[in-house]
Amino acid sequence: MLGMTFAGLRVPLRWCPRPWAVTSMFCMAEPRWGKASVSSTWRLLSGTSIEPPLTRERYGVSRLPFSRVTAQDLHAFQQLVPGRVVTDEEQLRSHNTDWLRTVRGHSEVLLKPESTAEVSQLLRYCNERNLAVTPQGGNTGMVGGSVPVFDEILISTALMDQVISFDNVSGALVCQAGCILESLNQYVEGQGYIMPLDLGAKGSCHIGGNLATNAGGLRLLRYGSLRGTVLGLEAVLADGTILNCLSSLRKDNTGYDLKQLLIGSEGTLGLITAVSILCPRRPCAVNVALLGCKSFTRVLEVFAMCRDLLGEILSAYEFLDTECMRMVQTHLKLSNPLTDSAFYVLIETSGSCASHDEEKLNTFLERALDSGLVTAGTLATDQGKIKALWALRERITEALSHDGYVYKYDLSLPVNKLYDLVAETRVRVGTSARSVVGYGHLGDGNLHLNVTADSHSDTLLAVLEPFVYDWTARHCGSISAEHGLGFKKRDHIHYSKSSAAVQLMQRLKHMLDPKGIMNPYKTIPSID
Amino acid sequence: MLGMTFAGLRVPLRWCPRPWAVTSMFCMAEPRWGKASVSSTWRLLSGTSIEPPLTRERYGVSRLPFSRVTAQDLHAFQQLVPGRVVTDEEQLRSHNTDWLRTVRGHSEVLLKPESTAEVSQLLRYCNERNLAVTPQGGNTGMVGGSVPVFDEILISTALMDQVISFDNVSGALVCQAGCILESLNQYVEGQGYIMPLDLGAKGSCHIGGNLATNAGGLRLLRYGSLRGTVLGLEAVLADGTILNCLSSLRKDNTGYDLKQLLIGSEGTLGLITAVSILCPRRPCAVNVALLGCKSFTRVLEVFAMCRDLLGEILSAYEFLDTECMRMVQTHLKLSNPLTDSAFYVLIETSGSCASHDEEKLNTFLERALDSGLVTAGTLATDQGKIKALWALRERITEALSHDGYVYKYDLSLPVNKLYDLVAETRVRVGTSARSVVGYGHLGDGNLHLNVTADSHSDTLLAVLEPFVYDWTARHCGSISAEHGLGFKKRDHIHYSKSSAAVQLMQRLKHMLDPKGIMNPYKTIPSID
Repeated sequence: MLGMTFAGLRVPLRWCPRPWAVTSMFCMAEPRWGKASVSSTWRLLSGTSIEPPLTRERYGVSRLPFSRVTAQDLHAFQQLVPGRVVTDEEQLRSHNTDWLRTVRGHSEVLLKPESTAEVSQLLRYCNERNLAVTPQGGNTGMVGGSVPVFDEILISTALMDQVISFDNVSGALVCQAGCILESLNQYVEGQGYIMPLDLGAKGSCHIGGNLATNAGGLRLLRYGSLRGTVLGLEAVLADGTILNCLSSLRKDNTGYDLKQLLIGSEGTLGLITAVSILCPRRPCAVNVALLGCKSFTRVLEVFAMCRDLLGEILSAYEFLDTECMRMVQTHLKLSNPLTDSAFYVLIETSGSCASHDEEKLNTFLERALDSGLVTAGTLATDQGKIKALWALRERITEALSHDGYVYKYDLSLPVNKLYDLVAETRVRVGTSARSVVGYGHLGDGNLHLNVTADSHSDTLLAVLEPFVYDWTARHCGSISAEHGLGFKKRDHIHYSKSSAAVQLMQRLKHMLDPKGIMNPYKTIPSID
Repeated sequence: MLGMTFAGLRVPLRWCPRPWAVTSMFCMAEPRWGKASVSSTWRLLSGTSIEPPLTRERYGVSRLPFSRVTAQDLHAFQQLVPGRVVTDEEQLRSHNTDWLRTVRGHSEVLLKPESTAEVSQLLRYCNERNLAVTPQGGNTGMVGGSVPVFDEILISTALMDQVISFDNVSGALVCQAGCILESLNQYVEGQGYIMPLDLGAKGSCHIGGNLATNAGGLRLLRYGSLRGTVLGLEAVLADGTILNCLSSLRKDNTGYDLKQLLIGSEGTLGLITAVSILCPRRPCAVNVALLGCKSFTRVLEVFAMCRDLLGEILSAYEFLDTECMRMVQTHLKLSNPLTDSAFYVLIETSGSCASHDEEKLNTFLERALDSGLVTAGTLATDQGKIKALWALRERITEALSHDGYVYKYDLSLPVNKLYDLVAETRVRVGTSARSVVGYGHLGDGNLHLNVTADSHSDTLLAVLEPFVYDWTARHCGSISAEHGLGFKKRDHIHYSKSSAAVQLMQRLKHMLDPKGIMNPYKTIPSID
């Protein structure tokens, strides 16, 4: 197969060391992470033996003096959302525990509103009664932001899953907050568009949760952050006020941009009920290449070459180290189509003209091979193979969760320093961890550093923290690039934000939610 | 010249009805709008006979009970910014009047800090003394946001014009707020990048002012809004607190995104002192085409075709009507390279591969001509001709200011409704106006509707308002797409924002600036 034309791409000699025929298992029906719903996501972890401890026990926080839910409250909720008040312990279990099974609350009631008006009535009631609330979307967060810490009332957006409108001229999609990202993508794809964001949890996560956490993901390199692509939103504030900023205009400079307050606030300032978002045109041609590199320095050099030669069609530049590849091979039985490499790079191009994109890609690949920066590589142009290559990157999180208890760090760093931290951490933890892996969105300077162990250990934690945060702060990085702070990282905010900034955040929180009922114990430290 | 290869572009037959030889005057040294400084911008309008009335007289607002500047205050300012306290009436004149000469304040002192620490000291002093302040950048705003209404103290960013750092790997530029946009673009171009925004006032406007007004402009279609491209900023709040959010990271989800509060707040929440912004790579190939269309419907059809065939290389889609062309021909002596058309479309492509871009552009142009959607057109690939074509679009504002008093409306509307408003306005005003023109960033749904008259007339104003705002609100538009609300439009905010939203803005203002000293009478209505 060497040197032959492959799926319409002119593949240079020495290319494609293992032809696709060998890796045809990639084309099987793909058990994607959380393909359809919260429950399917949940099943993926049900085989693991780790029982998450109650959050309050693990972290030693104290319950704030909120009221406790009474029979009278439950009766009131039944009046407001009849038949959609869940109190069954078994049904509540998955909603009380995060997807990673690292934190667990003990909420005794889950409410499922269908409309903004219902959310407003519920929050007004809770605020008056001083009842704390945890908003919950797909519950796929990584920092314990979407589960209760104590007995906060869960308000789920699961039944708020309707598309409100789609403008086929502008690409503006307006929908309720509970729509699942992958379903939305399928919906707009049918109209010649794509969602401007994509992430591993797409099969479960809700668009409202994506906004609440300012999700980054795999398409940020090309389409930018939600700060730019979200056109408007509707949210309900703590006191039940409906804040309707659901514009579908690309430009609107009338007053302060209030939607930005809600984006990334992790449910602590209000509950997002609807979203207006600008969808880019669906690209005619998508190509994916997986490359092997001997060193991280070469990964960086390939990135520079890539930006110059692929330019505007580059839509993703992801990297994973050899340990990540071992994880997906071992735990998910995925196949590595390349010979073993120290590092792998996944490049995606998306463009409007297949022949131009292929020409650009070939020029790049030839140059990358000739220069010796890349030692092996394989290309995919059809949908099945593209998905198979993406699975190697997207399913790392899932594979890690099968490896044991996971210490997760999601860091922004200057790209040239990015992997040094992984190497230093590996030396530092020695044999006390099972694995130390590094992967992420290199194009955005975003490293996912993950450490796995047999079970949670305070000793290992003390080896990792504050070391990782200190290192990140010393290199002017962010201790949370895209996961947010949630419950698990809120007390580390000072590594990335000044005291003046944190104080201003606290004042904003107090102004919008004076009783502090919205997702308490999360995102920003309490005022002492 | 017909049908020949032109500047490397294969030009189809029937193309280029007036070859560039005829329009070589385009290559002359170009007297761009405000090429270098505030003063040069100012000179452009010095020939007009309109003397702007004092704002308080025109608009009948009342001065709020701020303190008045005393000799003791001037002495204190001299201590804080020695030699940079301007009290000379003649020097203050241009700073007291907006570029359009429609509003005029009477500040008696202009302060020119050089550092963030100085800004902090000045604001702390003013806040303690209850002295009102108007921050001023290049003073190129369209809504009277950057000039005093009464005797507010002017704080200019003109001397804060230093580049702090540029990262050649990531493209992150960090600079002081007073850097002129065009100078920054020249600076980063030398390193293979461009600024992510471009606007007609580039030769005068300050990057801090761009952020403060959330400037849109000509590159938004391709590179998105400042909400996404600004990585960080530093600002001084009303009480002198320095808020340092000057991150250069592409992703940072640690707490609320405070920088978004300052972006677009028009100096009412704080004074932006430094900026961190992500610059895109400088495109290898830039092409510009000017096309003529018989009707606005065809302008829209050409846009749809353009998006499909030019895809990711489309970097601007601007339109102007025949009246706009008449303005730049009459007042600026620019030459129209096409035969007269009802509408003109300016298309820009920017890409990484010249031959691919030309092929895409040729395919598009051939199809546009063959379908009859376009009646005439001309192409430019070299820098001089590109600038000449851009001047036809960029210098409309300047041309209009020579036509008389200008009523300016900057509206976001659904693209298919966009020109209906211009037509209806033209009928409505009849002969009471000199000209009614429509142009703008069609790709962003942004219409600039301008009406000129011999002088300001309350009768004509009553014909235009609230008609234009009502019409815009009825079509779910925004009454300010990119200019902001400033002084002239703040009381119209309700056409585009709900009462709940306006109240929340007022609470934010009160929280950050309880005495209301920062740019008073601007952006949001005062609390009654």
